[in-house]
Amino acid sequence: MILTVTLNTALDITYRVGALRPHASHRVSEVRERPGGKGVTVARVLAALGHEVSVTGFAGGTTGREVRERLAAVPGLVDALVPVGGATRRTVAVVDEHTGGTTRLDEPGPLITPAEWSAFQKAYEGLLPAASAVALCGSLPPGVPVGAYAGLVRTARAAGVPVLLDTSGEPLRRGVAARPDIIKPNADELAELTGSHEPLRATLDARRRGARAVVASLGAEGLLAATSEGRWRARPPAQDRGTPATAGDAVVAGLLSGLVDRLPWPDRLARAAALSAATTPAADEVDRAAYGELLGRVSVTGEASAA
Amino acid sequence: MILTVTLNTALDITYRVGALRPHASHRVSEVRERPGGKGVTVARVLAALGHEVSVTGFAGGTTGREVRERLAAVPGLVDALVPVGGATRRTVAVVDEHTGGTTRLDEPGPLITPAEWSAFQKAYEGLLPAASAVALCGSLPPGVPVGAYAGLVRTARAAGVPVLLDTSGEPLRRGVAARPDIIKPNADELAELTGSHEPLRATLDARRRGARAVVASLGAEGLLAATSEGRWRARPPAQDRGTPATAGDAVVAGLLSGLVDRLPWPDRLARAAALSAATTPAADEVDRAAYGELLGRVSVTGEASAA
Repeated sequence: MILTVTLNTALDITYRVGALRPHASHRVSEVRERPGGKGVTVARVLAALGHEVSVTGFAGGTTGREVRERLAAVPGLVDALVPVGGATRRTVAVVDEHTGGTTRLDEPGPLITPAEWSAFQKAYEGLLPAASAVALCGSLPPGVPVGAYAGLVRTARAAGVPVLLDTSGEPLRRGVAARPDIIKPNADELAELTGSHEPLRATLDARRRGARAVVASLGAEGLLAATSEGRWRARPPAQDRGTPATAGDAVVAGLLSGLVDRLPWPDRLARAAALSAATTPAADEVDRAAYGELLGRVSVTGEASAA
Repeated sequence: MILTVTLNTALDITYRVGALRPHASHRVSEVRERPGGKGVTVARVLAALGHEVSVTGFAGGTTGREVRERLAAVPGLVDALVPVGGATRRTVAVVDEHTGGTTRLDEPGPLITPAEWSAFQKAYEGLLPAASAVALCGSLPPGVPVGAYAGLVRTARAAGVPVLLDTSGEPLRRGVAARPDIIKPNADELAELTGSHEPLRATLDARRRGARAVVASLGAEGLLAATSEGRWRARPPAQDRGTPATAGDAVVAGLLSGLVDRLPWPDRLARAAALSAATTPAADEVDRAAYGELLGRVSVTGEASAA
């Protein structure tokens, strides 16, 4: 199975309103809920592709219960979340009916105690032997040390499990130094990590900092990959229809899927780019027909390194 | 005990953010939760005053569980909510740290089935014999007939239990025709019911439509009461410190408290006005010291009818 780690899981709530106006009252016309946090979304995309996937991280409170009840309904997905005393955070996305614009409100997440963090590390070590790959995704909840991902990368590498890291800021900086197999920054995260706003220069720099492969997701510019096997750029044919957040998670799912299926890098990138373009923002689900159709039409350009 | 009915209970969530900007992302710095819906707030104020109070209405889903867990922690309050299949709604209040302005997002509430509505009516009839007064509060969730309050008013009157109605729009219009003992509209609700924006004229008109007593809550203008015993106006001495919604609920609690304590109308109005002014918006709780101090300083003017 593929293991995804989401230390700051969420109950993602989407509200539809006429138009959001500060300091006014609004009747919400439609409420949607789904289990969230980057690694959870990655896992749902992987399960939709037919992979067996386990989800770990923290869950607590009535919001955590709601997340777990909804994960239990996803075929192919195993809930390996670690219970905590605090309540899983909510994220609220308010979508304007008229403009389609989205306003986001993100709760910080529960305070994790040292005992809970230790319990998680033990659970993670127990899950790794059965994992073909592991993805470490998203922000850290309060109480988890900033070097958490660096430690989890080292544990995975010691267990011989390929590890992908998708986070930002200081947790990314420290995690990269622990030499993860893949990182997947977006343009902002890459610039913050390297200090360079020039993507090609920045991906190469991120490799020098420790990442064995860097796949930057650049929105409409597609994916830019720097690996030990070569450098490539992958572009989906159509306008990217995914929301930025989801699209990034679909890229991670595509990269992991291609990794465990032992695809060469250009095919992994094609899969990731097609998946990203085939993720419908409304349902936050993979449009399988669109994925199949897009897969053959992704342009991958670049060159393999001299062997 | 005093019975309060909240057909559309809520989990009230308050977020603190720097400043809400449409179509931007916000980190929430503080999250507060409390059980909500008008009748629930009324019950909490009554319990704070030392009354025994029972809360009925509907609760369901993980949000309903959260509401019930929090109600269980309130001394003097008995949970008599009827379980439903749908989930209790959330309300989200987003408070700007800089301006103090509040943006509200109200979910519509669960769809109530005919069987659930029947179960509620049976539970309500079972609770009435032990009630010294009943308050019917707030909006109706989807699926509950628009004449619901009219029926509940008639059932209470048939059982000889004094009944206060605090709602708006068509449910208020129909409820008034069933001859409740007290209604407590605000200025907008009163104007919508009667077509008159002149409060004195409108309160008299509302009595002619069937309400035995009308207590209009007019914000800074205090309370205006038209009853079979006379007409009065009650004004708290200080600036009203409560939020409008909470202040109205505190008025309802004060009127019920004065009713079951068999106070004459001027004293009931003084209690309601002082409670409203003593309800702190931050904690949504009664400031007992302020209440005691304000009670003696409410001005009640008017005249009793000729006996």
